[in-house]
Amino acid sequence: MNSMVSLRSVFMDGGCNSRFQDKQKMLKARKKPVKVLAVSSQKADKSIKVGILGASGYTGVELIRFIANHPYFSISLMTADRKAGQSIGSVFPHLITQDLPDLVAIKDADFSNVEAVFCCLPHGTTQEIINGLSTRLKIVDLSADFRLQDVHEYAEWYGQPHKASELQKEAVYGLTEIYRNKIQSARLVANPGCYPTSILLPLVPLLKDSLIELQDIVIVSNSGVSGAGRSAKEANLYTEVSEGIFSYGITRHRHVPEIEQELSDAANSKVTVSFTPTLMPMSRGMQSTINVKMAPGVLVEDLKQHLKKFYEKEEFVVVLPDGQAPHTKYVQGSNGCHINVFPDRIPGRAIIISAIDNLVKGASGQALQNLNLMMGFPENTGLSCMPLFP
Amino acid sequence: MNSMVSLRSVFMDGGCNSRFQDKQKMLKARKKPVKVLAVSSQKADKSIKVGILGASGYTGVELIRFIANHPYFSISLMTADRKAGQSIGSVFPHLITQDLPDLVAIKDADFSNVEAVFCCLPHGTTQEIINGLSTRLKIVDLSADFRLQDVHEYAEWYGQPHKASELQKEAVYGLTEIYRNKIQSARLVANPGCYPTSILLPLVPLLKDSLIELQDIVIVSNSGVSGAGRSAKEANLYTEVSEGIFSYGITRHRHVPEIEQELSDAANSKVTVSFTPTLMPMSRGMQSTINVKMAPGVLVEDLKQHLKKFYEKEEFVVVLPDGQAPHTKYVQGSNGCHINVFPDRIPGRAIIISAIDNLVKGASGQALQNLNLMMGFPENTGLSCMPLFP
Amino acid sequence: MNSMVSLRSVFMDGGCNSRFQDKQKMLKARKKPVKVLAVSSQKADKSIKVGILGASGYTGVELIRFIANHPYFSISLMTADRKAGQSIGSVFPHLITQDLPDLVAIKDADFSNVEAVFCCLPHGTTQEIINGLSTRLKIVDLSADFRLQDVHEYAEWYGQPHKASELQKEAVYGLTEIYRNKIQSARLVANPGCYPTSILLPLVPLLKDSLIELQDIVIVSNSGVSGAGRSAKEANLYTEVSEGIFSYGITRHRHVPEIEQELSDAANSKVTVSFTPTLMPMSRGMQSTINVKMAPGVLVEDLKQHLKKFYEKEEFVVVLPDGQAPHTKYVQGSNGCHINVFPDRIPGRAIIISAIDNLVKGASGQALQNLNLMMGFPENTGLSCMPLFP
Amino acid sequence: MNSMVSLRSVFMDGGCNSRFQDKQKMLKARKKPVKVLAVSSQKADKSIKVGILGASGYTGVELIRFIANHPYFSISLMTADRKAGQSIGSVFPHLITQDLPDLVAIKDADFSNVEAVFCCLPHGTTQEIINGLSTRLKIVDLSADFRLQDVHEYAEWYGQPHKASELQKEAVYGLTEIYRNKIQSARLVANPGCYPTSILLPLVPLLKDSLIELQDIVIVSNSGVSGAGRSAKEANLYTEVSEGIFSYGITRHRHVPEIEQELSDAANSKVTVSFTPTLMPMSRGMQSTINVKMAPGVLVEDLKQHLKKFYEKEEFVVVLPDGQAPHTKYVQGSNGCHINVFPDRIPGRAIIISAIDNLVKGASGQALQNLNLMMGFPENTGLSCMPLFP
Repeated sequence: MNSMVSLRSVFMDGGCNSRFQDKQKMLKARKKPVKVLAVSSQKADKSIKVGILGASGYTGVELIRFIANHPYFSISLMTADRKAGQSIGSVFPHLITQDLPDLVAIKDADFSNVEAVFCCLPHGTTQEIINGLSTRLKIVDLSADFRLQDVHEYAEWYGQPHKASELQKEAVYGLTEIYRNKIQSARLVANPGCYPTSILLPLVPLLKDSLIELQDIVIVSNSGVSGAGRSAKEANLYTEVSEGIFSYGITRHRHVPEIEQELSDAANSKVTVSFTPTLMPMSRGMQSTINVKMAPGVLVEDLKQHLKKFYEKEEFVVVLPDGQAPHTKYVQGSNGCHINVFPDRIPGRAIIISAIDNLVKGASGQALQNLNLMMGFPENTGLSCMPLFP
Repeated sequence: MNSMVSLRSVFMDGGCNSRFQDKQKMLKARKKPVKVLAVSSQKADKSIKVGILGASGYTGVELIRFIANHPYFSISLMTADRKAGQSIGSVFPHLITQDLPDLVAIKDADFSNVEAVFCCLPHGTTQEIINGLSTRLKIVDLSADFRLQDVHEYAEWYGQPHKASELQKEAVYGLTEIYRNKIQSARLVANPGCYPTSILLPLVPLLKDSLIELQDIVIVSNSGVSGAGRSAKEANLYTEVSEGIFSYGITRHRHVPEIEQELSDAANSKVTVSFTPTLMPMSRGMQSTINVKMAPGVLVEDLKQHLKKFYEKEEFVVVLPDGQAPHTKYVQGSNGCHINVFPDRIPGRAIIISAIDNLVKGASGQALQNLNLMMGFPENTGLSCMPLFP
Repeated sequence: MNSMVSLRSVFMDGGCNSRFQDKQKMLKARKKPVKVLAVSSQKADKSIKVGILGASGYTGVELIRFIANHPYFSISLMTADRKAGQSIGSVFPHLITQDLPDLVAIKDADFSNVEAVFCCLPHGTTQEIINGLSTRLKIVDLSADFRLQDVHEYAEWYGQPHKASELQKEAVYGLTEIYRNKIQSARLVANPGCYPTSILLPLVPLLKDSLIELQDIVIVSNSGVSGAGRSAKEANLYTEVSEGIFSYGITRHRHVPEIEQELSDAANSKVTVSFTPTLMPMSRGMQSTINVKMAPGVLVEDLKQHLKKFYEKEEFVVVLPDGQAPHTKYVQGSNGCHINVFPDRIPGRAIIISAIDNLVKGASGQALQNLNLMMGFPENTGLSCMPLFP
Repeated sequence: MNSMVSLRSVFMDGGCNSRFQDKQKMLKARKKPVKVLAVSSQKADKSIKVGILGASGYTGVELIRFIANHPYFSISLMTADRKAGQSIGSVFPHLITQDLPDLVAIKDADFSNVEAVFCCLPHGTTQEIINGLSTRLKIVDLSADFRLQDVHEYAEWYGQPHKASELQKEAVYGLTEIYRNKIQSARLVANPGCYPTSILLPLVPLLKDSLIELQDIVIVSNSGVSGAGRSAKEANLYTEVSEGIFSYGITRHRHVPEIEQELSDAANSKVTVSFTPTLMPMSRGMQSTINVKMAPGVLVEDLKQHLKKFYEKEEFVVVLPDGQAPHTKYVQGSNGCHINVFPDRIPGRAIIISAIDNLVKGASGQALQNLNLMMGFPENTGLSCMPLFP
């Protein structure tokens, strides 16, 4: 029996959920959420091998950053079709000192010693690839390919039929704080988009308890450029992006169906939102400004108290002190989500603001948080990096 | 008779409005607005002396930039109390080759040969100073001190009583495209704030014609940092601002009463808006994303056509082609305001986006546009600088 | 006789050089260089048609910016092979209000009413195209294709034989302040590169007068990203460039032969320099830090006084007051070059720093300055835009 | 006996140097430096209490970031005179979830349970404060107050007499890779400046082995703005810094005596260098471009091989593959120093380029590396954060 097995038995003793229950107990014991040093007393043997499909993009490299400090996971497989054969240090020179395998084409990938896979491939190509993987593998998919429960809606928004509709039924939407239980027992997790994460974390608890109206939810989201990926496009050149801002995908951004699916689920009724994404001259960071109408008799303070209570045991989701606006720079590089609620001048309405790092809580950080859960580890394992400031 | 007098008589022949009427005629003659080379055949004698009070800030220096290429105005007086005695080249080294007077304290200012004054002083100190100036002087005030018609509202938002309530009655709100006629005959113009300019230009025409509802106007505005001025504050350091965004003054930003005053005037009924300003990691630029409910039966296309028609003769306000989002970088350094209207996912609502350079159309550019009008010149004189891109 | 002819006869009366001599006289009359309002009393008829080959890049669009305010030039032809058929407003939305012709493929270009051409095409393709143009046309070429007098050196650095070696003999190197006389009578001007401009303006006068040694000239130059052009490359994405710096083309940057050619000419002896270009997280701006060994007996003050005297009549080249370091932001958007000289800690050596906007004095601004001269106009015509600050 | 004691005895068994010798043995065993997961099998008890004097600045907060993930150190004391009484979350909202003590005035600091102190106070005030601390405390001073061995030189450059000249004799200069042995047994370490670190790491080994000449060492260094600290100054506002660069402190930057002291020590002869620091529009990062004359017969390849060999066992100092230029973004947030050597066009000279994060290897990272050594821990403990990219 290797040390890993014994380690995992510690967490998993009593069934898949006991680790989480223990954490809940532990969390309940303390009043305010304090950062726990994720690395506990067990040996850092890094004996669980994981693979990253599509490792040459920004979400791939962000996973590498976190896994480098993960005590149990190590990367034994990285694919990147266009850069197959290259070392990671030649694609990402900041990784030059890392002991990592070379990039291979996905068709040459050897999954034999891999237990789990992060899939960072482009939308549209992912369904077939994941469909072809062994069911032995745990998978966190960072694309949009398994986020929409309704495969017809997928076809409508993505202009092509869903290619793995059976698998879709199995996929769990990976908004960790909301779907933690399902994620723990999932084999395939559809990791949420960055915009949806920033919007759903504050809105889902409010809709579930009917504290806000379903009508006239107006969302304006500002995103850093890394969300557009590493592919060379004129619109994303430094000279085009710096010192300017502009909205894009107005009315028809592909994150909309994902947002509305989850809000509708939470509200148990169809929700349609206004959503305007805007590109910012910064690499990382996302702020959503969400204007809502409160249910009759509900006060701004009620929204705030509800969110505080809902997230009081969470390490990553923080409701800020009164009056303090979230600042994307204050979660830069970390898995945090900062939220606050403000009174609106329009009577009966409230302004909710959330901030995340789009590459972390909005992508790779949440993906690791999910795989931790799926593998029976504390979900913050490897995610203890503090924000980089300034 | 000097050449200036003869020049002005050309414009002013037949009364104060004839120049404008001529321009209107000329503008009517052409279908699409083309940029007119502002400098016409008259001699560039720069014989009209103007003063800048508070010349060491960003709006002051932006006025200097434009007036340098103005054919009729020259700067003969610049004040800056804390930098009195210094040359402008020592305060702004990029002006080192300019032939400009040294900075003086305002108490030492000699207004004897000055015909007009731009007042770039801080809010709160301006009322008394302007009150003390000769009524012979034309004044464009870039502070907020004369923007609110109701002096009680001023007291409420600024925490001190208005110190020049008589003068307030005379002040004309300087949103050029809306109040052009009044501005032409004004002696004191209260130049609009940057946020209000970006919001009022699209909304006022729509409210005047009752195309949108007064309820639930939700505005999220993003601004470059120069709006915070040149004073040294920790929050505006490069290290604090770069690569991050955050909202501030939520619910209680001082531009709100100005916005609501003008919207209420246009609607002939009290309007209360939601307004969330957000600071961007860029020096210049402002985008307002405005979500409105359309009046019964009104379509998005109606809003757009109304704005297109309202501004079709304007050089600076441009309604963009269908689907094209405004980009603040595309008006950087210019007096332009780009506007477009988009359908919202929420039935019956629309998204209106406007972009300006907060220091130009949002401050000094519009100020010069106003003084041009007040002095009987084509309002685009000296404002023909193209946007700086990239 | 149209007004343009009479205008040009004013400047050109008495031979090609009289305009310049007049300017020299005028300049001599004043002690310190003051900015002259370029637009004089003549009618702004814009009757001279010019063409821009390769108008969809950053140097092309910068020419459009300046020519928009040029009283005599207008653009009647713009080519861009990959964007042929498009309006300039669709390629550069900030130009949407400009009355400009659509882009055409170069093979479809009609030069019949064009008097002069700016050539903004890529290196390597330019020689053949210019070779095929009518000798009636005045040409300012912004590529490197005609900068090297020695066609063998061209072949060596560019890896292909020179395709217009006859034409090369005719080409004049367009460093305006140094070669003004030759430029005035030139038909084909090879506009200098940005790095060479920033380096040659301070060094040429010092080498000509033997104030510095030829050995151990160490140059470190920092450049904004716009120098890399508008083509989509991963390395120039916002996410790759922001918040970081790196050197490139060390030892073998293609601007080196151009720099050494001109320094050797000035020194009348072969000069070999150390040159390290570094990419900055900014769109525009270039600083060269040049470390030189002074000739025996020469002092830092001698270098400075020599440069001051050499450039005292120039509008665009400014030697700063003692101790003041050039700042690229203080020439942003303008045709200025700021220079200063500092003592080095190493005895006998000095530090010379120069700053320009790489797209203006380093490219399109100097190109227009040159065409002004070639066409007999004051060289600052259309170039009176002040720096954009902040 | 608590677990910490037993842990330390593991490292310290056999005298102060054994740990290091063990590490050397281990390091020698492997060919290429691979990143070692710093957290080993011992319990992360964080039982060693450290204090941070001057915790409200950027070096203070960077120490907090690293210590948060340090398995043995915890912070029990933080001082900040002007912000005394505030929580760290109110001064740095990104630390809001951290369990840290409130800030106190230094006069109220309780050192009773503290074993070591990081001193992040301003230059000039530090000597007296450190002089007053118990000799029981280990101290890493990040100011310049103990860096110059010669107290007269301190007086000359800092304009005031040294106030702790006895203590100066004891201070060890904390360039870890060079002075590792001395640092292990030091009580007071003077942590190097950022510029010196980036310059000394490549130059000291070359001078020690006489591979380069002492004359004509020309250094141009580019630094991010965080080096200027968090105090509010007009020159460091976003609007002044973004999109521009400028040199400062030319000839007389206070890091010069520190650089020359160490270079002279290495060369065993007085060395005087040319040094031009330049401010970059980025928060973090530093590149030094160092132009040197090689000793007779020495080749560029010799310099490179010497540096490779010198640093082959080091985790943090990396000599890059041939031709690859260091990029500050590739060490952002990490304790790395990337170095490469390039041939110069000038025969006999070479270009050496190094890149660090000025706040990490140039300040707080190296400080922690030093305290780790002083306390008997592996020097990379708590420093395993990967660079943040993009």
